[in-house]
Amino acid sequence: MIAQTKRSVVKAKSRPSADERAARIYRVAAELITQKGFDATSMSEIAQAVQLTKAGLYYYVPGKKELLYSIVSYGMQTIEEGVIAPCEQIEDPQNRLREIVRRHTLLLTQLGGAITILTDEVNGLTPAHRRRITAKKRDYLEFVRATLDELSQFGRLRSTNIRVVSLNLFSTILGVARWFRPNGVESGEAVANEVTDFVLAAVLKGE
Amino acid sequence: MIAQTKRSVVKAKSRPSADERAARIYRVAAELITQKGFDATSMSEIAQAVQLTKAGLYYYVPGKKELLYSIVSYGMQTIEEGVIAPCEQIEDPQNRLREIVRRHTLLLTQLGGAITILTDEVNGLTPAHRRRITAKKRDYLEFVRATLDELSQFGRLRSTNIRVVSLNLFSTILGVARWFRPNGVESGEAVANEVTDFVLAAVLKGE
Repeated sequence: MIAQTKRSVVKAKSRPSADERAARIYRVAAELITQKGFDATSMSEIAQAVQLTKAGLYYYVPGKKELLYSIVSYGMQTIEEGVIAPCEQIEDPQNRLREIVRRHTLLLTQLGGAITILTDEVNGLTPAHRRRITAKKRDYLEFVRATLDELSQFGRLRSTNIRVVSLNLFSTILGVARWFRPNGVESGEAVANEVTDFVLAAVLKGE
Repeated sequence: MIAQTKRSVVKAKSRPSADERAARIYRVAAELITQKGFDATSMSEIAQAVQLTKAGLYYYVPGKKELLYSIVSYGMQTIEEGVIAPCEQIEDPQNRLREIVRRHTLLLTQLGGAITILTDEVNGLTPAHRRRITAKKRDYLEFVRATLDELSQFGRLRSTNIRVVSLNLFSTILGVARWFRPNGVESGEAVANEVTDFVLAAVLKGE
Protein backbone atom coordinates (compact mmCIF):
# COMPACT_ATOMS: atom_id res chain seq x y z
CA MET A 1 0.00 0.00 0.00
CA ILE A 2 2.74 2.42 1.05
CA ALA A 3 4.82 1.27 -1.85
CA GLN A 4 1.95 2.09 -4.21
CA THR A 5 1.52 5.61 -2.77
CA LYS A 6 5.22 6.18 -3.11
CA ARG A 7 5.14 5.02 -6.67
CA SER A 8 2.36 7.48 -7.56
CA VAL A 9 4.24 10.33 -5.87
CA VAL A 10 7.28 9.49 -7.93
CA LYS A 11 5.08 9.26 -11.00
CA ALA A 12 3.62 12.72 -10.27
CA LYS A 13 7.05 14.28 -10.45
CA SER A 14 7.72 12.93 -13.88
CA ARG A 15 4.20 13.15 -15.34
CA PRO A 16 1.84 15.99 -14.30
CA SER A 17 -1.79 15.16 -13.41
CA ALA A 18 -4.71 16.26 -15.60
CA ASP A 19 -5.38 19.12 -13.15
CA GLU A 20 -1.78 20.28 -13.34
CA ARG A 21 -1.83 20.10 -17.14
CA ALA A 22 -5.03 22.18 -17.21
CA ALA A 23 -3.53 24.70 -14.75
CA ARG A 24 -0.46 25.02 -16.97
CA ILE A 25 -2.64 25.66 -20.03
CA TYR A 26 -4.52 28.37 -18.12
CA ARG A 27 -1.28 30.05 -17.01
CA VAL A 28 0.29 30.07 -20.46
CA ALA A 29 -2.92 31.08 -22.24
CA ALA A 30 -3.49 33.89 -19.72
CA GLU A 31 0.05 35.13 -20.36
CA LEU A 32 -0.54 35.23 -24.13
CA ILE A 33 -3.98 36.85 -23.84
CA THR A 34 -2.79 39.63 -21.52
CA GLN A 35 0.17 40.32 -23.82
CA LYS A 36 -1.62 40.29 -27.17
CA GLY A 37 -5.27 40.89 -26.24
CA PHE A 38 -8.09 38.31 -26.33
CA ASP A 39 -9.16 38.95 -29.94
CA ALA A 40 -5.61 38.87 -31.30
CA THR A 41 -4.74 35.53 -29.64
CA SER A 42 -5.71 32.42 -31.62
CA MET A 43 -6.32 28.89 -30.32
CA SER A 44 -3.49 27.72 -32.61
CA GLU A 45 -1.02 30.06 -30.90
CA ILE A 46 -2.16 28.89 -27.47
CA ALA A 47 -1.84 25.25 -28.56
CA GLN A 48 1.68 25.92 -29.83
CA ALA A 49 2.69 27.71 -26.63
CA VAL A 50 1.59 24.75 -24.48
CA GLN A 51 3.08 22.23 -26.93
CA LEU A 52 -0.21 20.61 -27.84
CA THR A 53 -1.78 20.04 -31.23
CA LYS A 54 -4.89 22.10 -31.82
CA ALA A 55 -6.97 18.91 -31.38
CA GLY A 56 -5.07 18.27 -28.13
CA LEU A 57 -6.01 21.72 -26.82
CA TYR A 58 -9.67 21.22 -27.82
CA TYR A 59 -9.62 18.10 -25.64
CA TYR A 60 -9.29 20.43 -22.62
CA VAL A 61 -11.49 23.33 -23.77
CA PRO A 62 -14.25 23.52 -26.38
CA GLY A 63 -13.32 27.04 -27.55
CA LYS A 64 -11.64 30.36 -26.82
CA LYS A 65 -14.54 31.93 -24.88
CA GLU A 66 -14.80 28.78 -22.74
CA LEU A 67 -11.04 28.88 -22.23
CA LEU A 68 -11.27 32.43 -20.89
CA TYR A 69 -14.05 31.33 -18.54
CA SER A 70 -11.99 28.32 -17.41
CA ILE A 71 -9.00 30.56 -16.67
CA VAL A 72 -11.05 33.04 -14.65
CA SER A 73 -12.94 30.24 -12.82
CA TYR A 74 -9.64 28.63 -11.97
CA GLY A 75 -8.41 31.97 -10.59
CA MET A 76 -11.50 32.36 -8.41
CA GLN A 77 -11.38 28.73 -7.30
CA THR A 78 -7.82 29.10 -6.03
CA ILE A 79 -8.97 32.16 -4.02
CA GLU A 80 -11.88 30.20 -2.54
CA GLU A 81 -9.71 27.24 -1.58
CA GLY A 82 -6.50 29.07 -0.70
CA VAL A 83 -7.83 32.24 0.95
CA ILE A 84 -11.52 32.15 1.91
CA ALA A 85 -11.76 28.55 3.21
CA PRO A 86 -8.72 28.71 5.56
CA CYS A 87 -9.39 32.30 6.69
CA GLU A 88 -13.05 31.64 7.55
CA GLN A 89 -11.69 29.48 10.39
CA ILE A 90 -9.84 32.41 11.99
CA GLU A 91 -11.82 33.88 14.89
CA ASP A 92 -9.87 37.12 15.51
CA PRO A 93 -10.67 39.69 12.79
CA GLN A 94 -7.19 41.24 12.82
CA ASN A 95 -5.46 37.89 12.37
CA ARG A 96 -8.08 37.00 9.74
CA LEU A 97 -7.38 40.18 7.77
CA ARG A 98 -3.63 39.57 8.00
CA GLU A 99 -4.02 36.03 6.66
CA ILE A 100 -6.38 37.12 3.86
CA VAL A 101 -3.85 39.67 2.58
CA ARG A 102 -0.85 37.38 3.02
CA ARG A 103 -2.43 34.31 1.44
CA HIS A 104 -3.98 36.22 -1.48
CA THR A 105 -0.68 37.94 -2.29
CA LEU A 106 1.33 34.74 -1.99
CA LEU A 107 -1.16 32.85 -4.18
CA LEU A 108 -0.91 35.53 -6.79
CA THR A 109 2.88 35.28 -6.94
CA GLN A 110 2.54 31.52 -7.43
CA LEU A 111 -0.30 31.66 -9.93
CA GLY A 112 1.33 34.27 -12.16
CA GLY A 113 -0.01 37.76 -12.69
CA ALA A 114 -1.79 37.11 -15.98
CA ILE A 115 -4.57 34.97 -14.46
CA THR A 116 -5.24 37.70 -11.89
CA ILE A 117 -5.32 40.41 -14.54
CA LEU A 118 -7.80 38.43 -16.65
CA THR A 119 -9.93 37.69 -13.57
CA ASP A 120 -9.99 41.41 -12.91
CA GLU A 121 -11.20 42.22 -16.43
CA VAL A 122 -14.24 40.14 -17.24
CA ASN A 123 -15.19 41.95 -20.46
CA GLY A 124 -14.50 39.02 -22.77
CA LEU A 125 -16.89 36.66 -20.96
CA THR A 126 -20.43 35.78 -22.06
CA PRO A 127 -23.13 37.47 -19.92
CA ALA A 128 -23.99 34.18 -18.12
CA HIS A 129 -20.35 33.44 -17.33
CA ARG A 130 -19.75 37.01 -16.26
CA ARG A 131 -22.67 36.82 -13.82
CA ARG A 132 -21.26 33.67 -12.25
CA ILE A 133 -17.78 35.19 -11.83
CA THR A 134 -19.18 38.48 -10.55
CA ALA A 135 -21.18 36.54 -7.91
CA LYS A 136 -18.03 34.75 -6.73
CA LYS A 137 -16.13 38.05 -6.59
CA ARG A 138 -18.97 39.60 -4.61
CA ASP A 139 -18.81 36.76 -2.07
CA TYR A 140 -15.11 37.37 -1.58
CA LEU A 141 -15.55 41.14 -1.33
CA GLU A 142 -18.32 40.61 1.24
CA PHE A 143 -16.05 38.34 3.26
CA VAL A 144 -13.34 41.02 3.35
CA ARG A 145 -15.83 43.81 4.11
CA ALA A 146 -17.38 41.81 6.95
CA THR A 147 -13.92 41.43 8.46
CA LEU A 148 -13.34 45.19 8.13
CA ASP A 149 -16.78 45.85 9.66
CA GLU A 150 -15.88 43.72 12.65
CA LEU A 151 -12.61 45.61 13.09
CA SER A 152 -14.48 48.88 12.78
CA GLN A 153 -16.86 47.84 15.58
CA PHE A 154 -13.84 47.23 17.79
CA GLY A 155 -12.61 50.75 16.91
CA ARG A 156 -9.56 49.29 15.15
CA LEU A 157 -9.82 51.02 11.72
CA ARG A 158 -8.16 54.31 10.83
CA SER A 159 -10.88 55.30 8.39
CA THR A 160 -14.65 55.06 8.61
CA ASN A 161 -14.93 54.65 4.84
CA ILE A 162 -14.88 50.85 4.62
CA ARG A 163 -15.74 50.91 0.92
CA VAL A 164 -12.65 52.90 -0.05
CA VAL A 165 -10.47 51.04 2.47
CA SER A 166 -11.42 47.69 0.90
CA LEU A 167 -10.86 49.06 -2.62
CA ASN A 168 -7.39 50.33 -1.63
CA LEU A 169 -6.61 47.00 -0.01
CA PHE A 170 -7.47 45.13 -3.20
CA SER A 171 -5.59 47.63 -5.39
CA THR A 172 -2.41 46.98 -3.42
CA ILE A 173 -2.78 43.19 -3.56
CA LEU A 174 -3.85 43.02 -7.22
CA GLY A 175 -1.11 45.48 -8.17
CA VAL A 176 1.39 42.73 -7.35
CA ALA A 177 0.06 40.86 -10.41
CA ARG A 178 1.37 43.70 -12.56
CA TRP A 179 4.86 44.04 -11.14
CA PHE A 180 5.91 40.73 -9.57
CA ARG A 181 8.39 38.65 -11.60
CA PRO A 182 9.16 35.07 -10.57
CA ASN A 183 12.95 34.74 -10.21
CA GLY A 184 13.05 38.50 -9.55
CA VAL A 185 14.67 40.37 -6.65
CA GLU A 186 12.21 39.19 -3.97
CA SER A 187 10.69 35.78 -3.31
CA GLY A 188 6.89 35.41 -3.32
CA GLU A 189 7.01 34.98 0.47
CA ALA A 190 9.03 38.19 0.94
CA VAL A 191 6.61 40.14 -1.27
CA ALA A 192 3.58 38.66 0.54
CA ASN A 193 5.05 39.77 3.89
CA GLU A 194 5.87 43.29 2.62
CA VAL A 195 2.39 43.74 1.14
CA THR A 196 0.75 42.41 4.32
CA ASP A 197 2.68 44.85 6.54
CA PHE A 198 1.89 47.71 4.13
CA VAL A 199 -1.84 47.00 4.04
CA LEU A 200 -2.25 46.27 7.76
CA ALA A 201 -0.43 49.50 8.71
CA ALA A 202 -2.63 51.41 6.25
CA VAL A 203 -5.88 49.90 7.51
CA LEU A 204 -5.44 49.54 11.29
CA LYS A 205 -4.99 52.22 13.92
CA GLY A 206 -1.53 52.32 15.51
CA GLU A 207 -1.28 50.61 18.90
CA MET B 1 3.17 82.48 -21.08
CA ILE B 2 1.13 82.86 -17.88
CA ALA B 3 -1.14 85.42 -19.53
CA GLN B 4 -1.73 83.07 -22.42
CA THR B 5 -2.65 80.23 -20.06
CA LYS B 6 -5.04 82.51 -18.21
CA ARG B 7 -6.73 83.64 -21.41
CA SER B 8 -7.36 80.10 -22.50
CA VAL B 9 -8.91 79.30 -19.11
CA VAL B 10 -11.35 82.20 -19.45
CA LYS B 11 -12.11 81.31 -23.03
CA ALA B 12 -12.77 77.73 -21.98
CA LYS B 13 -16.05 78.68 -20.38
CA SER B 14 -17.67 79.68 -23.64
CA ARG B 15 -15.79 77.73 -26.32
CA PRO B 16 -13.28 75.00 -25.53
CA SER B 17 -9.68 75.70 -26.64
CA ALA B 18 -7.79 73.46 -29.06
CA ASP B 19 -6.00 71.95 -26.06
CA GLU B 20 -9.27 71.20 -24.33
CA ARG B 21 -10.76 69.72 -27.49
CA ALA B 22 -7.69 67.49 -27.85
CA ALA B 23 -7.93 66.48 -24.17
CA ARG B 24 -11.58 65.53 -24.67
CA ILE B 25 -10.68 63.39 -27.69
CA TYR B 26 -7.99 61.63 -25.63
CA ARG B 27 -10.40 60.96 -22.77
CA VAL B 28 -13.16 59.56 -24.98
CA ALA B 29 -10.77 57.55 -27.18
CA ALA B 30 -9.04 56.11 -24.07
CA GLU B 31 -12.45 55.07 -22.72
CA LEU B 32 -13.32 53.25 -25.97
CA ILE B 33 -9.89 51.61 -26.30
CA THR B 34 -9.87 50.29 -22.71
CA GLN B 35 -13.40 48.93 -23.18
CA LYS B 36 -13.00 47.30 -26.59
CA GLY B 37 -9.26 46.83 -26.93
CA PHE B 38 -6.91 48.81 -29.17
CA ASP B 39 -7.21 46.54 -32.23
CA ALA B 40 -11.00 46.34 -32.07
CA THR B 41 -11.47 50.13 -31.87
CA SER B 42 -11.61 51.94 -35.23
CA MET B 43 -10.87 55.59 -35.97
CA SER B 44 -14.45 55.89 -37.30
CA GLU B 45 -15.87 54.80 -33.96
CA ILE B 46 -13.63 57.25 -32.11
CA ALA B 47 -14.66 60.06 -34.50
CA GLN B 48 -18.33 59.23 -33.92
CA ALA B 49 -17.89 59.16 -30.13
CA VAL B 50 -16.33 62.64 -30.11
CA GLN B 51 -18.83 63.95 -32.68
CA LEU B 52 -16.28 64.66 -35.37
CA THR B 53 -16.15 63.51 -38.98
CA LYS B 54 -13.33 61.10 -39.68
CA ALA B 55 -11.52 63.93 -41.52
CA GLY B 56 -12.10 66.14 -38.47
CA LEU B 57 -10.46 63.55 -36.22
CA TYR B 58 -7.50 63.21 -38.62
CA TYR B 59 -6.99 66.96 -38.21
CA TYR B 60 -5.96 66.25 -34.59
CA VAL B 61 -4.12 62.95 -35.05
CA PRO B 62 -2.55 61.35 -38.14
CA GLY B 63 -3.52 57.77 -37.17
CA LYS B 64 -4.51 55.32 -34.45
CA LYS B 65 -0.96 54.52 -33.26
CA GLU B 66 -0.20 58.25 -33.02
CA LEU B 67 -3.47 58.75 -31.16
CA LEU B 68 -2.43 56.16 -28.59
CA TYR B 69 0.91 57.92 -28.19
CA SER B 70 -0.83 61.31 -27.85
CA ILE B 71 -3.12 59.92 -25.14
CA VAL B 72 -0.25 58.43 -23.15
CA SER B 73 1.92 61.56 -23.61
CA TYR B 74 -0.96 63.68 -22.42
CA GLY B 75 -1.29 61.44 -19.36
CA MET B 76 2.41 61.79 -18.54
CA GLN B 77 2.39 65.53 -19.22
CA THR B 78 -0.41 66.10 -16.71
CA ILE B 79 1.66 64.17 -14.13
CA GLU B 80 4.72 66.32 -14.88
CA GLU B 81 2.79 69.58 -14.63
CA GLY B 82 0.31 68.64 -11.92
CA VAL B 83 2.44 66.45 -9.64
CA ILE B 84 6.20 66.63 -10.24
CA ALA B 85 6.56 70.39 -10.90
CA PRO B 86 4.64 71.59 -7.79
CA CYS B 87 6.00 68.85 -5.51
CA GLU B 88 9.63 69.49 -6.45
CA GLN B 89 9.21 72.79 -4.61
CA ILE B 90 8.36 71.10 -1.31
CA GLU B 91 11.40 70.89 0.98
CA ASP B 92 10.12 68.49 3.67
CA PRO B 93 10.08 64.92 2.30
CA GLN B 94 7.02 63.86 4.32
CA ASN B 95 4.96 66.80 3.08
CA ARG B 96 6.32 66.16 -0.42
CA LEU B 97 5.23 62.52 -0.33
CA ARG B 98 1.80 63.50 0.96
CA GLU B 99 1.35 66.01 -1.87
CA ILE B 100 2.60 63.56 -4.53
CA VAL B 101 0.03 60.97 -3.50
CA ARG B 102 -2.81 63.47 -3.07
CA ARG B 103 -2.19 65.33 -6.31
CA HIS B 104 -1.67 62.19 -8.39
CA THR B 105 -4.86 60.60 -7.07
CA LEU B 106 -6.90 63.76 -7.53
CA LEU B 107 -5.58 64.23 -11.07
CA LEU B 108 -6.51 60.69 -11.89
CA THR B 109 -10.11 61.19 -10.73
CA GLN B 110 -10.31 64.29 -12.94
CA LEU B 111 -8.59 62.78 -15.96
CA GLY B 112 -10.69 59.59 -16.00
CA GLY B 113 -9.32 56.15 -15.34
CA ALA B 114 -8.95 55.08 -18.98
CA ILE B 115 -6.02 57.40 -19.73
CA THR B 116 -4.19 56.06 -16.65
CA ILE B 117 -4.87 52.45 -17.62
CA LEU B 118 -3.52 53.05 -21.15
CA THR B 119 -0.49 54.88 -19.76
CA ASP B 120 0.14 51.86 -17.56
CA GLU B 121 0.02 49.43 -20.50
CA VAL B 122 2.34 50.64 -23.24
CA ASN B 123 2.19 47.50 -25.38
CA GLY B 124 0.43 49.14 -28.34
CA LEU B 125 3.11 51.83 -28.82
CA THR B 126 5.90 51.78 -31.39
CA PRO B 127 9.34 51.00 -29.91
CA ALA B 128 10.52 54.63 -30.23
CA HIS B 129 7.39 55.99 -28.58
CA ARG B 130 7.55 53.36 -25.89
CA ARG B 131 11.13 54.36 -25.06
CA ARG B 132 10.13 57.99 -24.68
CA ILE B 133 7.20 57.16 -22.38
CA THR B 134 9.26 54.68 -20.37
CA ALA B 135 11.91 57.39 -19.82
CA LYS B 136 9.27 59.81 -18.51
CA LYS B 137 7.86 57.13 -16.22
CA ARG B 138 11.36 56.36 -14.95
CA ASP B 139 11.89 60.05 -14.10
CA TYR B 140 8.70 60.09 -12.07
CA LEU B 141 9.53 56.81 -10.33
CA GLU B 142 12.98 58.17 -9.49
CA PHE B 143 11.44 61.32 -8.04
CA VAL B 144 9.22 59.24 -5.75
CA ARG B 145 12.04 56.86 -4.80
CA ALA B 146 14.35 59.78 -3.96
CA THR B 147 11.66 61.12 -1.62
CA LEU B 148 11.34 57.68 0.01
CA ASP B 149 15.15 57.47 0.29
CA GLU B 150 15.24 60.80 2.09
CA LEU B 151 12.53 59.62 4.51
CA SER B 152 14.44 56.40 5.04
CA GLN B 153 17.58 58.36 5.98
CA PHE B 154 15.54 60.18 8.62
CA GLY B 155 14.41 56.77 9.92
CA ARG B 156 10.82 57.55 8.97
CA LEU B 157 9.94 54.46 6.86
CA ARG B 158 8.38 51.29 8.24
CA SER B 159 10.08 49.07 5.69
CA THR B 160 13.64 49.02 4.37
CA ASN B 161 12.47 47.67 1.02
CA ILE B 162 11.99 50.95 -0.87
CA ARG B 163 11.44 49.15 -4.16
CA VAL B 164 8.40 47.23 -2.91
CA VAL B 165 7.14 50.22 -0.91
CA SER B 166 7.13 52.40 -4.03
CA LEU B 167 5.44 49.65 -6.08
CA ASN B 168 2.73 49.28 -3.42
CA LEU B 169 2.30 53.05 -3.32
CA PHE B 170 1.74 53.19 -7.08
CA SER B 171 -0.58 50.16 -7.03
CA THR B 172 -2.85 51.91 -4.55
CA ILE B 173 -2.91 55.17 -6.51
CA LEU B 174 -3.28 53.59 -9.96
CA GLY B 175 -5.94 51.21 -8.61
CA VAL B 176 -8.20 54.26 -8.27
CA ALA B 177 -8.27 54.42 -12.08
CA ARG B 178 -10.02 51.05 -12.07
CA TRP B 179 -12.70 51.70 -9.47
CA PHE B 180 -13.39 55.46 -9.32
CA ARG B 181 -16.60 56.62 -10.97
CA PRO B 182 -17.27 60.34 -11.47
CA ASN B 183 -20.67 61.15 -9.92
CA GLY B 184 -20.17 58.10 -7.67
CA VAL B 185 -20.45 57.88 -3.88
CA GLU B 186 -17.29 59.91 -3.13
CA SER B 187 -15.94 63.10 -4.70
CA GLY B 188 -12.48 63.08 -6.26
CA GLU B 189 -11.22 65.16 -3.32
CA ALA B 190 -12.63 62.72 -0.76
CA VAL B 191 -11.03 59.77 -2.57
CA ALA B 192 -7.69 61.61 -2.87
CA ASN B 193 -7.72 62.27 0.90
CA GLU B 194 -8.63 58.66 1.75
CA VAL B 195 -5.91 57.28 -0.53
CA THR B 196 -3.34 59.73 0.85
CA ASP B 197 -4.09 58.75 4.46
CA PHE B 198 -4.00 55.05 3.51
CA VAL B 199 -0.64 55.30 1.73
CA LEU B 200 1.04 57.57 4.29
CA ALA B 201 0.00 55.30 7.18
CA ALA B 202 1.31 52.31 5.23
CA VAL B 203 4.65 53.91 4.38
CA LEU B 204 5.58 55.98 7.46
CA LYS B 205 6.38 54.82 10.96
CA GLY B 206 3.79 55.77 13.58
CA GLU B 207 4.61 58.86 15.64
